[in-house]
Amino acid sequence: MKIKFGCDLIELKPTKILAVAKNYVKHINELKLSMPSEPKIFLKPPSSLVGNNGVVIIPGASKQVDYEVELAAIIRERCWKVSKEEALDYVLGFTVFNDITARDIQAREMKEGMPWDIAKGFNTFAPIGPEIITVENVDCNNLNIWLKVNGEMKQNSNTKNMIFSVEDLISYLSNIMTLEPLDIIATGTPEGVGSIKAGDSIESGIEGIGILKFKIEDEK
Amino acid sequence: MKIKFGCDLIELKPTKILAVAKNYVKHINELKLSMPSEPKIFLKPPSSLVGNNGVVIIPGASKQVDYEVELAAIIRERCWKVSKEEALDYVLGFTVFNDITARDIQAREMKEGMPWDIAKGFNTFAPIGPEIITVENVDCNNLNIWLKVNGEMKQNSNTKNMIFSVEDLISYLSNIMTLEPLDIIATGTPEGVGSIKAGDSIESGIEGIGILKFKIEDEK
Repeated sequence: MKIKFGCDLIELKPTKILAVAKNYVKHINELKLSMPSEPKIFLKPPSSLVGNNGVVIIPGASKQVDYEVELAAIIRERCWKVSKEEALDYVLGFTVFNDITARDIQAREMKEGMPWDIAKGFNTFAPIGPEIITVENVDCNNLNIWLKVNGEMKQNSNTKNMIFSVEDLISYLSNIMTLEPLDIIATGTPEGVGSIKAGDSIESGIEGIGILKFKIEDEK
Repeated sequence: MKIKFGCDLIELKPTKILAVAKNYVKHINELKLSMPSEPKIFLKPPSSLVGNNGVVIIPGASKQVDYEVELAAIIRERCWKVSKEEALDYVLGFTVFNDITARDIQAREMKEGMPWDIAKGFNTFAPIGPEIITVENVDCNNLNIWLKVNGEMKQNSNTKNMIFSVEDLISYLSNIMTLEPLDIIATGTPEGVGSIKAGDSIESGIEGIGILKFKIEDEK
């Protein structure tokens, strides 16, 4: 898929999408989870990406699919064992992301201690866009972030409420695995998550970046 | 990284590595887990790949890193919603894989219902090789599979003991996400898993495919 970057449309082909669970205190409380002492990381497959004004398909396998608006950092340059201080030097820019989740499947797997990757990995479960804004143009740790379903505000927070900052996450992750150009790091969702159903229109925005829109359809 | 395929060396750049937990009954019993009613899937990042005769690095963050030999299928052609009957038409071939796992980190995350992707995702945690053997040349559901640590046999089974066959897994996964050329599907490990430490030499083999060798070093 392509995404706007300055005056260009660039091909967004990440080698991996890393996402963070439990990064906003009020979201942890609403899901009745424990506070993390370190980032809780999972992967989403690149096949789940869909661009701005795309369609998220509710799979027949799930009865409860949730939206989750998130700030996403896009990596600029290969990096390994980066300090917090130099972390933003390796970021191309930021965009809006949704970590769409089959909550019923995730809840079942959590109960058994099993992986979440199917619950998070269906095709179209990673809307992203509308464009990448360069690092210099936003203060990534102080941006209003919100999501509306059919015009009604459901999530409304600020990235300053993240437990682990963008710099924390890049440093932590790059000490575990090499980050590659165009890799995506989704930084977790604030409180207010809820379900979507066929016919819904979603608008999700981050201050200084833009509004990512998508519609919901059932699997045919 | 490059891998031998016939007379060629091809660049192995998967868009995703899908791996299966709990696919051999005796392995489920040794880890005291419950039997799965459907495949339990997780992702490993492509940054974890390392070729034949490579080195697996034990990260400072873990005190218990385990080997896990597995049969891996390499996808040949983009596919979506493939039936079991046509699944092998989309496979380029098979090779030997090790799903290296920081067992202590995984156990901690399982207890909390949290994702496994860090425990499975460190750099060098996915040795693969020595070559890809085409579908026609092996009966993928009846191959002896084994692993030796410093010459001593630790794992010794046959892919006929898999709960979900290669065809089951490709059909299941392709109903959730689009599979792309060179995507890797690791089909689970048999019983006999155990720890590795710096200085160990591992040989892991699959009948009709070859022997994947790697050495173990501590992180510097």
